[in-house]
Amino acid sequence: MSTPPLHQMPAWQAAALLARRELKATDLVRACLDRIGEREAQLQAFVHLAADAAVKRAVELDAGPVRGVLHGLPFGMKDLFDTFDMPTAYGSPMYAGHQPLADASAVALCREAGGVLLGKTVTTELANMFPGVTRNPHNPAHTPGGSSSGSAAAVADFMLPLALGTQTAGSLIRPAAFCGVVGYKPSHNRVPRGGVKSLSETLDTVGGFGRNVRDVALLGAVLTGDARLADPANFNLAAAPRIGMCQTPEWAQAWQDTRQAWALAEAALAGLTAPVTLPQELSGLVALQKQVQAHETARSLSHERLHHRERLSPPLQALIADGLAVSGEAHAHNLLLLADARHQAAALFDKCDVLMAPSTLGEAPAGLDSTGDPLFCRSWTLLGLPCVHLPFARGSTGLSVGLQLVGAYGDDHRLLAAAHWIHQRLTH
Amino acid sequence: MSTPPLHQMPAWQAAALLARRELKATDLVRACLDRIGEREAQLQAFVHLAADAAVKRAVELDAGPVRGVLHGLPFGMKDLFDTFDMPTAYGSPMYAGHQPLADASAVALCREAGGVLLGKTVTTELANMFPGVTRNPHNPAHTPGGSSSGSAAAVADFMLPLALGTQTAGSLIRPAAFCGVVGYKPSHNRVPRGGVKSLSETLDTVGGFGRNVRDVALLGAVLTGDARLADPANFNLAAAPRIGMCQTPEWAQAWQDTRQAWALAEAALAGLTAPVTLPQELSGLVALQKQVQAHETARSLSHERLHHRERLSPPLQALIADGLAVSGEAHAHNLLLLADARHQAAALFDKCDVLMAPSTLGEAPAGLDSTGDPLFCRSWTLLGLPCVHLPFARGSTGLSVGLQLVGAYGDDHRLLAAAHWIHQRLTH
Repeated sequence: MSTPPLHQMPAWQAAALLARRELKATDLVRACLDRIGEREAQLQAFVHLAADAAVKRAVELDAGPVRGVLHGLPFGMKDLFDTFDMPTAYGSPMYAGHQPLADASAVALCREAGGVLLGKTVTTELANMFPGVTRNPHNPAHTPGGSSSGSAAAVADFMLPLALGTQTAGSLIRPAAFCGVVGYKPSHNRVPRGGVKSLSETLDTVGGFGRNVRDVALLGAVLTGDARLADPANFNLAAAPRIGMCQTPEWAQAWQDTRQAWALAEAALAGLTAPVTLPQELSGLVALQKQVQAHETARSLSHERLHHRERLSPPLQALIADGLAVSGEAHAHNLLLLADARHQAAALFDKCDVLMAPSTLGEAPAGLDSTGDPLFCRSWTLLGLPCVHLPFARGSTGLSVGLQLVGAYGDDHRLLAAAHWIHQRLTH
Repeated sequence: MSTPPLHQMPAWQAAALLARRELKATDLVRACLDRIGEREAQLQAFVHLAADAAVKRAVELDAGPVRGVLHGLPFGMKDLFDTFDMPTAYGSPMYAGHQPLADASAVALCREAGGVLLGKTVTTELANMFPGVTRNPHNPAHTPGGSSSGSAAAVADFMLPLALGTQTAGSLIRPAAFCGVVGYKPSHNRVPRGGVKSLSETLDTVGGFGRNVRDVALLGAVLTGDARLADPANFNLAAAPRIGMCQTPEWAQAWQDTRQAWALAEAALAGLTAPVTLPQELSGLVALQKQVQAHETARSLSHERLHHRERLSPPLQALIADGLAVSGEAHAHNLLLLADARHQAAALFDKCDVLMAPSTLGEAPAGLDSTGDPLFCRSWTLLGLPCVHLPFARGSTGLSVGLQLVGAYGDDHRLLAAAHWIHQRLTH
């Protein structure tokens, strides 16, 4: 087993060493803190860093029993998750200095499994489109994507091996793609959302980032409670995965970056793929997702729009106005359309194990005034299907580009196993 | 239009008078506060009362424009909803004195529509089975039901015309039945849950209580944003509703109270009803609901079980232990079973507008050490279907008994219209 510098070590490799007491949590935590110290001024991935508390926790873990699959692993999370020991501002000035009483459920689960919380990462304003200060670690003039901006950037820049985020439109897969890391959005409702600022119950999904599939699967095992995910290398797929290549009805909008990645994937996976066209009933989902998100966000943020409207950014005010224009009657109809679509989506996996689909239009756009377009993520989020972004190619300016895999609902286990297999094939 | 004492006036009637400026919000609020002053020592429905703030708000509303369909109407809510101006303890000593920064989304929506918040009502511990202090207004030796205990009791006792609650198993319909009021559980996900302590994303549903169907429909219009609900008397059903009488597979456990109510309903609705038997695929849902609830609650309350286990009641500790015994893999399978069941439930309404089903085993049991059994609510909550409890009969000790109506998903409008029609038939 090769041993890269500690802050670059894959989480699964560190976890094995930590569990065997061949690596100290203290050393790993300090290595990550050192990296953060070197790079944070440029990257601006964190809103709160808890270095002393993290070292203290690492010392405790080194002295006590092995706690779980994240034992001794540093992690962070988007500042949309409540933490009992750190302020939580949801990316909005109206919540500056807010100190919750309890951890979000997902945070508590990660700590229970032995994870060491290093800090809170930058989120866009209330996990919407208005950007935070984080820069793309591979080119500071480009966006890291959003809304889980700081989490994706920190993992990509070797500050953290693992970080949590959330997705309502494309807030896990897009920043993963733009920063060149693996992003994992679990099946909707498999991970508890308690203590995460709520935007859209139909869409909000807790997930995470790592630098390889086995790493995010470790996180997935803890978040979903599905122990099978703890190591997809052991999944022993009976055969090579059958991959449905699904360009989606929005393919015409893909840039050359994504088209080249697509061609690379088709070549590398020749013999395992077959084209999949979405049936008519599943082809209008982007518009439906936008309506559902806008309506639910406008109503979820009722306190904010009533009491602090002037502290909401103009783009968020515009989204809320769009949402208030969708009536409750129309929303009920949309929820029925959605239930039908989710039912029909199951058949997409009759002849394949996973779908491969675009993650983003292309590489991370230049500029920090936008986090990019979640277009290619909206339908899968609406369907509640588990997704994994795989980075494996380069775009026109040399930034990372990749594609996402999409699994059947509840089938995160098979999705991650296939993702591990496919990622190896695409990168070796 | 007859004018009952102000604190007894139906919300829809008060709303009409308030909108025409023929009734002052100040007078209505003071009448409810007087009633609370007379009865609270016995009933113990409130954990926090905001009399001065409520009068101040009523004065503002009387002096300003008509705000919305709840203009000037007093309301309260279970202390499971965050409020920016009142402490929120979720029925647990570990949160005593907790002061959130923002209103829960549903609370903000009710205030936006002109509702006057009088106070927070008693919930069982973290909206689970361990009872609060509230007594049944019709017999203080009997439970008011739970978990929305104080809200149901306060509405039944004429302290408030309207109150909010939540249901994860039977926490709206059961206390409505035991206290003899109308309870309304909307279709799952039609009402935002932001700022409500999260127990089970698959099940948690915000709803409310009133003393008649038109009153809860007012609340429903605000909570769902569906303006059609603002007055079901105007729904103009094309014909008398077609009612499917669904005893459910658990009928053998119903007490004589409920059997008599069933017979009364069948007689009163003769010619409009037809028996409905749940198909095999929908007959094992009680066990499935219990597993889903236990698993999700155990993981949602991760912070509490990790940091404050000794402050959780033994029954809640037992539920959490049950939930931790359901693996994440089993939960994923359960969510797939649930998706199938929700899809199949649509066909239940092919030949009827609504189902009529038991709400409770019978009348409110004696004793305050249990809030009663949610048995007859579990399946409908799991299916996410909208439900309305109608009180119309008396049980063996003279307490209220009734039945619930269940609608198709998203079809709250038809359900409430039918409920209004049927309740009139059953009570006149």
